[in-house]
Amino acid sequence: MNWIYTLDLFGTCIFAISGVLTAIDKRFDLVGSIVIGFVTAIGGGTLRDVLIGRFPVGWLNDRNYLLAILVGALAAFLFRKIVVQFRKSFFLFDTIGIGLFTILGIKIALAYQLRIENCILMGIISACFGGVIRDVLTNEIPLIFRKEIYATACLIGGIIYLLLNAFSQFDDLNIVIAIGTVILIRYASIKYGWSLNFSSD
Amino acid sequence: MNWIYTLDLFGTCIFAISGVLTAIDKRFDLVGSIVIGFVTAIGGGTLRDVLIGRFPVGWLNDRNYLLAILVGALAAFLFRKIVVQFRKSFFLFDTIGIGLFTILGIKIALAYQLRIENCILMGIISACFGGVIRDVLTNEIPLIFRKEIYATACLIGGIIYLLLNAFSQFDDLNIVIAIGTVILIRYASIKYGWSLNFSSD
Amino acid sequence: MNWIYTLDLFGTCIFAISGVLTAIDKRFDLVGSIVIGFVTAIGGGTLRDVLIGRFPVGWLNDRNYLLAILVGALAAFLFRKIVVQFRKSFFLFDTIGIGLFTILGIKIALAYQLRIENCILMGIISACFGGVIRDVLTNEIPLIFRKEIYATACLIGGIIYLLLNAFSQFDDLNIVIAIGTVILIRYASIKYGWSLNFSSD
Repeated sequence: MNWIYTLDLFGTCIFAISGVLTAIDKRFDLVGSIVIGFVTAIGGGTLRDVLIGRFPVGWLNDRNYLLAILVGALAAFLFRKIVVQFRKSFFLFDTIGIGLFTILGIKIALAYQLRIENCILMGIISACFGGVIRDVLTNEIPLIFRKEIYATACLIGGIIYLLLNAFSQFDDLNIVIAIGTVILIRYASIKYGWSLNFSSD
Repeated sequence: MNWIYTLDLFGTCIFAISGVLTAIDKRFDLVGSIVIGFVTAIGGGTLRDVLIGRFPVGWLNDRNYLLAILVGALAAFLFRKIVVQFRKSFFLFDTIGIGLFTILGIKIALAYQLRIENCILMGIISACFGGVIRDVLTNEIPLIFRKEIYATACLIGGIIYLLLNAFSQFDDLNIVIAIGTVILIRYASIKYGWSLNFSSD
Repeated sequence: MNWIYTLDLFGTCIFAISGVLTAIDKRFDLVGSIVIGFVTAIGGGTLRDVLIGRFPVGWLNDRNYLLAILVGALAAFLFRKIVVQFRKSFFLFDTIGIGLFTILGIKIALAYQLRIENCILMGIISACFGGVIRDVLTNEIPLIFRKEIYATACLIGGIIYLLLNAFSQFDDLNIVIAIGTVILIRYASIKYGWSLNFSSD
């Protein structure tokens, strides 16, 4: 699990950066920005843990998550202008984080013996609701509901992971394929302008 | 409890429809709209379960709630224009759902031996906070706080249920009377333009 | 603990007043305003209890918190215009409440044997997130992230409390000094226009 744990901390750090950057854009003060970074990074996993009844919630048990968030916040403050230039790499990292958080959420839900459909929901919640809470706190309509095939990518990645899981023992490989699927869908959706919008026009 | 369970699923479905319709209005994408439908339908009961400490929260234990939500979402997408025409029936169903969710919330709180005033609060939270979360996620000021005697109807319906409960064993009848009260209050408030608005003008 | 308990109820009442006044400004109806007062008063402590896994959450165990909130709501409705005139006293009471809620949150987290940094986080959450939830429900960007050194004051007050705690047995005195620090920082920040704003201009 070592590379997964490392990637998890890395994803947490990336999510924190995205939260802090949003907060700075909104002219939040220092502590407020860190709070937004914090909530973006751990919001999804926290909601998942609360729904399942896993207490105290995850990040309270492992100091490294807080450290990853503080490193992310520091990076966001120091390298604000640079980060914006590396938008494409950042987007890739963010997508890796989303894919991984989906799979980790599913694995935790499986360990709590939730039904298969609830496991997928927990994966989506883990990956997406940090950003939802960030957008609610900064008074925006959550981006993921509108602009990108974001939750959909998590949904499909999660289903693929569970399918692979049923047929193969190579968990590490399954995870890599599932995350790869999430990345592919998100890139393709932007490249080809996919959207699943059913509103009237 | 069979008719209550049926009505509960029915109310869940109606709440999901109302959530999806709101989301479509706001141009959310397919998955985003389903998420809003989902949150509207199970948000109140989930918050109640979390506050009481009832884990895993209710809908994780019974697949039928997810099914009711998916049926509601499908109906909202397919019959969007028709649903809008049946606004009055829809309003009636919605009010039945609110009334029932209030009573079910109270019954669960009673089973957890909460104090009588906390039971009423749990009833109001069960009925109203799905809509509150829907409005927060779609960046609206929660409707129930402003436009209709909504929480008030739940409050009075809940008190009546508990009073009836103290004097009569016919629980089914008590529930029907309490839900009827909620419906009556909500209809009367709209017909006669009641409101409990204390703001300065 | 008697003076602390009294102060806790007093702080709860003050927070409820601030919530109800905000809601009246936003033209919420009677019940909606009371809900906002309620959520402002118990939101932070509730979130803390949920994160730690302390169920049922605090206010469900003690009727006096609900009473304090109702007294606060009544005061807000009756003495609305007067309260506005006593803005300065109200600000002082509010700051005392924030300071006390920080320390009480830390004490509860310590009792649950959380790590020291998580205790401080729980203190900040207890003090600040009632107001955050109030602002989210009334569709405002949370004030504390932008306008005042609010969370920062809680952070510093919390650190000072934990430092004092490590060296001295006089818990009551430690609490008074820590709350005093929070008050001092908040007053000084307003008087001297301190802010920790890192946005580009």
